[in-house]
Amino acid sequence: MFLETIMTPSDLKKLTFDQMERLAQEIRSYLLEVVSRTGGHLAPNLGVVELSIALHYVFNSPQDKIIWDVGHQSYVHKILTGRREELKTLRQFKGLSGFPKRSESVHDCFETGHSSTSISAALGFALARDLKQEKNSVIAVIGDGALTGGMAYEALNHAGQLGTRLIVILNDNEMSITRNVGAMSGYLSRLRTDPLYHRSKEDVREVLQRIPNIGPKMFKAAERFKDSVKYLLVSGMLFEELGFTYLGPIDGHNLRILNQVLERARLLPGPVLLHVKTIKGKGYPPAEKQPNKFHGIGPFDLKTGKTRPRRVPTFTEVFGKAVIKIAEDHPELVAITAAMSEGTGLCEFSRRYPRRFFDVGIAEQHAVTMAAGLAQTGCLPVVAIYSTFLQRAYDQIVHDVALQNLHIIFALDRAGIVGEDGETHQGVFDLSYLRHIPRMTVMAPRDQSELVAMLKSSLKYSGPIAIRYPRGSGPQEEVDYRLPVLPFGRGELLREGEDLVILAVGPLVYQALEAAEQLSMKGKEAAVINCRFVKPLDEELILEWSNRTKKVITIEENVIAGGFGSAVLELLADRGFNGEAARMGIPDSFLGHGAPDLLCRSIGLNAAGIIDLIKSKGWLDS
Amino acid sequence: MFLETIMTPSDLKKLTFDQMERLAQEIRSYLLEVVSRTGGHLAPNLGVVELSIALHYVFNSPQDKIIWDVGHQSYVHKILTGRREELKTLRQFKGLSGFPKRSESVHDCFETGHSSTSISAALGFALARDLKQEKNSVIAVIGDGALTGGMAYEALNHAGQLGTRLIVILNDNEMSITRNVGAMSGYLSRLRTDPLYHRSKEDVREVLQRIPNIGPKMFKAAERFKDSVKYLLVSGMLFEELGFTYLGPIDGHNLRILNQVLERARLLPGPVLLHVKTIKGKGYPPAEKQPNKFHGIGPFDLKTGKTRPRRVPTFTEVFGKAVIKIAEDHPELVAITAAMSEGTGLCEFSRRYPRRFFDVGIAEQHAVTMAAGLAQTGCLPVVAIYSTFLQRAYDQIVHDVALQNLHIIFALDRAGIVGEDGETHQGVFDLSYLRHIPRMTVMAPRDQSELVAMLKSSLKYSGPIAIRYPRGSGPQEEVDYRLPVLPFGRGELLREGEDLVILAVGPLVYQALEAAEQLSMKGKEAAVINCRFVKPLDEELILEWSNRTKKVITIEENVIAGGFGSAVLELLADRGFNGEAARMGIPDSFLGHGAPDLLCRSIGLNAAGIIDLIKSKGWLDS
Repeated sequence: MFLETIMTPSDLKKLTFDQMERLAQEIRSYLLEVVSRTGGHLAPNLGVVELSIALHYVFNSPQDKIIWDVGHQSYVHKILTGRREELKTLRQFKGLSGFPKRSESVHDCFETGHSSTSISAALGFALARDLKQEKNSVIAVIGDGALTGGMAYEALNHAGQLGTRLIVILNDNEMSITRNVGAMSGYLSRLRTDPLYHRSKEDVREVLQRIPNIGPKMFKAAERFKDSVKYLLVSGMLFEELGFTYLGPIDGHNLRILNQVLERARLLPGPVLLHVKTIKGKGYPPAEKQPNKFHGIGPFDLKTGKTRPRRVPTFTEVFGKAVIKIAEDHPELVAITAAMSEGTGLCEFSRRYPRRFFDVGIAEQHAVTMAAGLAQTGCLPVVAIYSTFLQRAYDQIVHDVALQNLHIIFALDRAGIVGEDGETHQGVFDLSYLRHIPRMTVMAPRDQSELVAMLKSSLKYSGPIAIRYPRGSGPQEEVDYRLPVLPFGRGELLREGEDLVILAVGPLVYQALEAAEQLSMKGKEAAVINCRFVKPLDEELILEWSNRTKKVITIEENVIAGGFGSAVLELLADRGFNGEAARMGIPDSFLGHGAPDLLCRSIGLNAAGIIDLIKSKGWLDS
Repeated sequence: MFLETIMTPSDLKKLTFDQMERLAQEIRSYLLEVVSRTGGHLAPNLGVVELSIALHYVFNSPQDKIIWDVGHQSYVHKILTGRREELKTLRQFKGLSGFPKRSESVHDCFETGHSSTSISAALGFALARDLKQEKNSVIAVIGDGALTGGMAYEALNHAGQLGTRLIVILNDNEMSITRNVGAMSGYLSRLRTDPLYHRSKEDVREVLQRIPNIGPKMFKAAERFKDSVKYLLVSGMLFEELGFTYLGPIDGHNLRILNQVLERARLLPGPVLLHVKTIKGKGYPPAEKQPNKFHGIGPFDLKTGKTRPRRVPTFTEVFGKAVIKIAEDHPELVAITAAMSEGTGLCEFSRRYPRRFFDVGIAEQHAVTMAAGLAQTGCLPVVAIYSTFLQRAYDQIVHDVALQNLHIIFALDRAGIVGEDGETHQGVFDLSYLRHIPRMTVMAPRDQSELVAMLKSSLKYSGPIAIRYPRGSGPQEEVDYRLPVLPFGRGELLREGEDLVILAVGPLVYQALEAAEQLSMKGKEAAVINCRFVKPLDEELILEWSNRTKKVITIEENVIAGGFGSAVLELLADRGFNGEAARMGIPDSFLGHGAPDLLCRSIGLNAAGIIDLIKSKGWLDS
């Protein structure tokens, strides 16, 4: 076993290539053993075993900086940098993060989670190095999927001009999470396979030498012609035009070649793009066959690759079904996703309505503004993007959608606490970043049936509409797809009570109801309102019960500043409420990883927390 | 005069080329006459006179859709689409907008203002057309500067893959507002000037024919070689690789060529990129010489090109000076801007410290994440971006900066009401979109001296810090650059008073003081606090005076939802305040264009508005 001898990257440098190859196999087995129990991003990590080893063999972390784009492919890096044992706690509450974390290791020099940030960050590291006149290398490892994100291009464009030393490793597995999108992807595929791109330099030289002697008239043309040799000898002209030296494509599972070419890249003076071909899920047949399924996965059976079946339908599944049903009667409906057709439940829609489905790649900004263009001409776009990723299109929602008051439905999946993916993926800002935008409607369903009702209702409303719903199974085992259209801007009184009122949105409505039951046993009667709308609020219903009880609690799966609770406070202040109001939500800090119920308990965001708050306010005594 | 005969684009189609050329001259004169009086984006419009005429000559708006990226170059389009006379009210309160506005004309099919959105929007229009099986053309007109924005690339990448009919006109004047940035810009410049790119097809064919007969061994190589002819015959391979047919570069001031090539582009089946070379400021020598100065300009003297000198220093100027002073003692300080070195006052810094200055182009996302990379290695980045444009980097602030708690100073120029640029440029969301982000510090200076103090203080604080300050002259004629470091999180009591307290941030502090004076004459004494910090609030100071007076007014140049006032309400609720609180800010809608003082008056955001609010609350009577 070599695996156990690797405590730091320097231990790696003592191994022979044969030994490193055996190490690679040991790492694969270990990854499978661990991730089949913890769940996690399996396929991406199986794909970068050799690349991670080679990087730590050729470069000297932490002096040299390795930045993992998205970062879900950093497990091997974590194993090689002294976190082998801790990997067993992967993604668990207070365990190892599934993404790079500076607090875990000096080898995690930059934290990632969202896509396409690594080249920008790496350029920052490189420029700081130049200012300090240091010599270290800076390496960004970015997937071909992440290259569809505009900010990656912004960074390439800038780095190519500056010309400073920087290595971008394009980890090309022909996938983002699902199949890749965009002309760039086609270009990379031609680089991989086209004869034009795979010509041998010798062949070309020979042809060139056969060009006969030419007279003066032809001289200039021939000169130009020879200039153009660079087109013939150099693959990756697109990157070359952007100022990068292009190397590759090379086999990302061949350690000898990787080491050789990384060494060459290390010594080049300017920005380098090294094109590495890898296979997602490499070495585990079920993952090679279904890299999508094994991209991010829960615990599974190592022998069969099967995961435990879920009995309760997820919000995502229900959304997917509902959109298809609605689309039948609404030919104007089109669906848009940003490289998340599976994650947002739109796979079946894409099969059923291929002409009305657009996966734009990891390009949330473009997705939203393209939707604005579609909406201008009478289409009704449903834009399904995770809450945390829609952050990237905040400006487009303000400037391209709300300003023109366009009828677009934003389906924010993974809103609220997402759990194991942790800080970078928690969808806990959307109520705050959407609510203050003029003309927005913002809703949160309490359960799966209400999600369907909100979707259907959104067709009747106008302007931009956001529906945010959480990851995973909802509270209902049976979903009612036939709920009627919801009256616009109206909440739902679920329980009467004269001692206080709990105003809730999303599935926390059920926690509010449970708390009310417990309070009832203590002799206090709480009214419970499912507000449904964060914007516009159901002002009359909220004011009625607030004034009646004089004691208001708001609860939301969103940061405590600027969200639903703040909206209620604004309303109450504007209307001269003279009782007490208390807000519950995510405290003003970033929330780490772990099972959602553990996380909720840790911040008291559940029925017990409601009771505790009421106690601390002294409302039980009065 | 042809100008007066053009009421709709169809009138244009009756003219001969000679007549259109005379029309172009008339339009130039008219633009100069109007904009020298109203102010506006002169140079960009002088550059697109012929292009705008040609577009409306070849295409049929509004069936064909013309989308103007950024939109400040749409004046000629407005003149040609029935708004010649209204142009005289350009950018004035209730007058014509300086950007496309659907409410003005059916020919304004999509509203713009921020950069790099047009290709996404155009693709949306094109896809909707395809779904409806219609035939119209869709044209995006985008500058080479806007092409540095990542979302333009996201859209090119997607459009290139889809292959639907779409025309992107690259209006290449080698400038964004100042000189262009990025490797793409170098590439475009090579397209314009390199012999390799400007070869004649005939020359190349002749060389090719001279390749002698070859044996079978060589055949394949020669075949490959001939394949590569596409590299030799086709300019703009970068765009071709992305799936676009590249046409150009052509002279954007030659109407005959423009018409010819636009006609060709119109008939091509897939996406086309037409590269048009234009001269910013064309036809007005002062603007040709200083396109930067005449990009966006106030009223000026037509003969000399001179603008009226300003006596009171702007926040921007003071920021620029202060950063230079601070940088002298702080070698770790670096400054970053996104194509706005002039607009943010960093020109002198860039000359003084060229190695510590980075203009990343129109690429706010990259700017922020690159700053994060720099900050990770001990540099202190000052990121100067307009409030409205920083919206585009919201996710990067959350995910790359705040999550890692990096010490970065964000200087948000043009925060609050910006005036004549209107809806798309008002910087009225930043307090709301920044305040809810954990670990952020958010400040707003009351005047220019306090801006300097906040900048100096930010070096002593830690974590991400935003300082937001308005466009234009500040309240002070003399700036004190020597104010001491401000205690973190502390406000400033400017006036005592027992009847109510006005909590203000930014220059509205002066309106609050004025209101307090007026109230005093009415027998009511208002305390006034310059809060300075929107996050963290000076809790003790605010609570002390709130509890003492029981009547609180907050005032901010920010939308009324989720900003400073909401933060105060949250604090008061959390601490059991039992008086009354009222908020003042921008109402929950988009605020149009006009002089800032007119806009403030229209929404009552000034001393008089404070008095009105107090009256309406009945606080004068009690």
